[in-house]
Amino acid sequence: MKVLVINCGSSSIKYQLYDMPAGNVLAKGLLERIGEPTSRLLHQARGAAHEIPCAAEDHVAGMETILATLASPDKGVMGAITEIGACGHRVVHGGEEFTGSVIIDGDVIASIERFADLAPLHNPPNLAGIRAARRELPDVPQIACFDTAFHATIPEVAYLYALPYALYEQYRIRRYGFHGTSHRYVARRAAALLGRDKYDINAITCHLGNGCSMAAVRGGRSADTSMGLTPLEGLVMGTRSGDFDPAILMYLAEKGMDTRRLNSLCNKESGLLGISGISNDMRNLAAQARNGERRAALAIDMFCYRVRKYIGAYTAVLGTLDAVVFTGGIGENSPLVREKSCGALAQIGIELDPEKNARPPAREADVAAAASRVRVLVIPTDEEAAIAQDTYALAQDKEQP
Amino acid sequence: MKVLVINCGSSSIKYQLYDMPAGNVLAKGLLERIGEPTSRLLHQARGAAHEIPCAAEDHVAGMETILATLASPDKGVMGAITEIGACGHRVVHGGEEFTGSVIIDGDVIASIERFADLAPLHNPPNLAGIRAARRELPDVPQIACFDTAFHATIPEVAYLYALPYALYEQYRIRRYGFHGTSHRYVARRAAALLGRDKYDINAITCHLGNGCSMAAVRGGRSADTSMGLTPLEGLVMGTRSGDFDPAILMYLAEKGMDTRRLNSLCNKESGLLGISGISNDMRNLAAQARNGERRAALAIDMFCYRVRKYIGAYTAVLGTLDAVVFTGGIGENSPLVREKSCGALAQIGIELDPEKNARPPAREADVAAAASRVRVLVIPTDEEAAIAQDTYALAQDKEQP
Repeated sequence: MKVLVINCGSSSIKYQLYDMPAGNVLAKGLLERIGEPTSRLLHQARGAAHEIPCAAEDHVAGMETILATLASPDKGVMGAITEIGACGHRVVHGGEEFTGSVIIDGDVIASIERFADLAPLHNPPNLAGIRAARRELPDVPQIACFDTAFHATIPEVAYLYALPYALYEQYRIRRYGFHGTSHRYVARRAAALLGRDKYDINAITCHLGNGCSMAAVRGGRSADTSMGLTPLEGLVMGTRSGDFDPAILMYLAEKGMDTRRLNSLCNKESGLLGISGISNDMRNLAAQARNGERRAALAIDMFCYRVRKYIGAYTAVLGTLDAVVFTGGIGENSPLVREKSCGALAQIGIELDPEKNARPPAREADVAAAASRVRVLVIPTDEEAAIAQDTYALAQDKEQP
Repeated sequence: MKVLVINCGSSSIKYQLYDMPAGNVLAKGLLERIGEPTSRLLHQARGAAHEIPCAAEDHVAGMETILATLASPDKGVMGAITEIGACGHRVVHGGEEFTGSVIIDGDVIASIERFADLAPLHNPPNLAGIRAARRELPDVPQIACFDTAFHATIPEVAYLYALPYALYEQYRIRRYGFHGTSHRYVARRAAALLGRDKYDINAITCHLGNGCSMAAVRGGRSADTSMGLTPLEGLVMGTRSGDFDPAILMYLAEKGMDTRRLNSLCNKESGLLGISGISNDMRNLAAQARNGERRAALAIDMFCYRVRKYIGAYTAVLGTLDAVVFTGGIGENSPLVREKSCGALAQIGIELDPEKNARPPAREADVAAAASRVRVLVIPTDEEAAIAQDTYALAQDKEQP
């Protein structure tokens, strides 16, 4: 079965076409600048990359272009789009309702609409993609995979904030967490690498990319995570601040900043960019730090200090810990960040092997010292593959009820 | 030398009169409801407690009443107020300027005024007390002891937030931390109890009272702390929320709450009170939880879960840890909170002795199991005694230059 995985932003559609159950990627790409006259499709298939100018005025037009390209004689990988057997959608916010992936129907769409209040930047474009795919592929099961779903197992003591309980009752203000598909994927891979059942592992998973979050995984299930009601909370990110004294917002409001300004400040002008004043890109900052740029080095140190604090906090939450897992662009590729984040933690059982950390011996690798009580794993994440698996499984279930 | 220690709130003056260097408390009391017609002085001396109605229209009148009482023939402890050799003042915010206690002069007063922007509820009444004491005791050295001073050693990586660096440059927005006099006092006592030099200890100090904060103490000096720009950040407190996703404030602002409302919400309606809906008092909640009140039990669990996360985080920050110290009304008196906060942490080296924790064998006690790598100490705090010591030492220095 061919499974199409879709990830829609406000002006973009990312896609991957999988051959399931084998899991091979047949084609993938990105349609960007939807709504602008200069939108374009970056498409990869059969070892070739294509840049295709187009004029996608909305997500429906964009989806038409993508499907036509996937079935085109020269750049395509199938004879007709009817070969697509199921379509999986990344959806950011599933509220408290969705604890796993689901087949999309009218009720599911209504719920995703309702949760747009909690994820105003993400759920509406996710829905636009779902609607476009349902229109273009009306006979194909559409599946929603929620960023929040893996964190549905977080207990009340960790998901509630110490705010008036009425805010939870009235607005469902609580910790939801995000990047769940990634945390779940690498937690499963970590269990497999350690030769354990997927529900027989305590791990701390560190998804360090452009957005960053960590999860405490107890018995294969999320027990806590660093992002909260929104993706602002927790770690230092490219342009997001993560944790800070919330009273700072009230202090700045008194100085005359309005909500819109504060939102931009915390989400777009903070993090690595805000500290360094130079860049939101870890590779760039590492180069600048080597050149003696003080605030580039400071940004890296603060980023790693925050990861270290969460490693400690989640070690205490879990009580016993089998593995720390690094994933995401930074987690997979920065020995410096891994070393600064979990070096000198022998007292809590975490010891890196400096050589292995500097040059992980495999794509998925254990970079802990032989004597380390806790394993330290580097595992490339693959959210699209996880969505393809969920989508395939649910589509199969539907065929054989 | 008799040393008077003063702690002024907006409508109250707390005081203790010490005989130094012996450290005996000769008298202590609280003048409350300043500015109201029904203000009153609760005064204790020579084993007797007195409730004295008065009409203190301001801090100067309050100070006059206190001094007159201290020197009165029936309730007093000295022949004349000229026996007072020095006066120590608790001051909440010393900004980045004060790294220890100082003798107050015009420049110090100007600085305390300047930092009122960062502590609008605290520094102005602290200053009112200083001005009243200078007026009533003009020939006596006045000393300021800052809640922030002990935290002056926190490194940049821990005191900066991952917000735009310009906010630090322009407004000095950073982590300051509070309860410093208490954290310092118990860290010194912990070193003494373990037979170590005061600069030869790594400890996590947990000040759990009505306000709550924790500090990571490296080599006897503060290396990080849970309160930030303001006393809102960090642990769950009686009515303060501690940490939460700052984006929640922007979400609630969009729902129509203004800054004043949000301030009250986080500082006065949250924490133990906000979760439980019952009380901000841990003893009360513990009783209610025993009676089966679900949300009372939840509030206690959330309180302890947050302490546990910070114990883990600071263990990772310190790398090696000698002791966890509990102090403050809750820290000293709640075996339940200590057990829930640091039970099941054997993997990071912390093991309680259940019997000793339930009934600490001395006023200052080690309640860890014999085999525990990390000691767990219960140490009653005494901020007034620490202020009296600082005040006496600086007054002595002044006499013998």
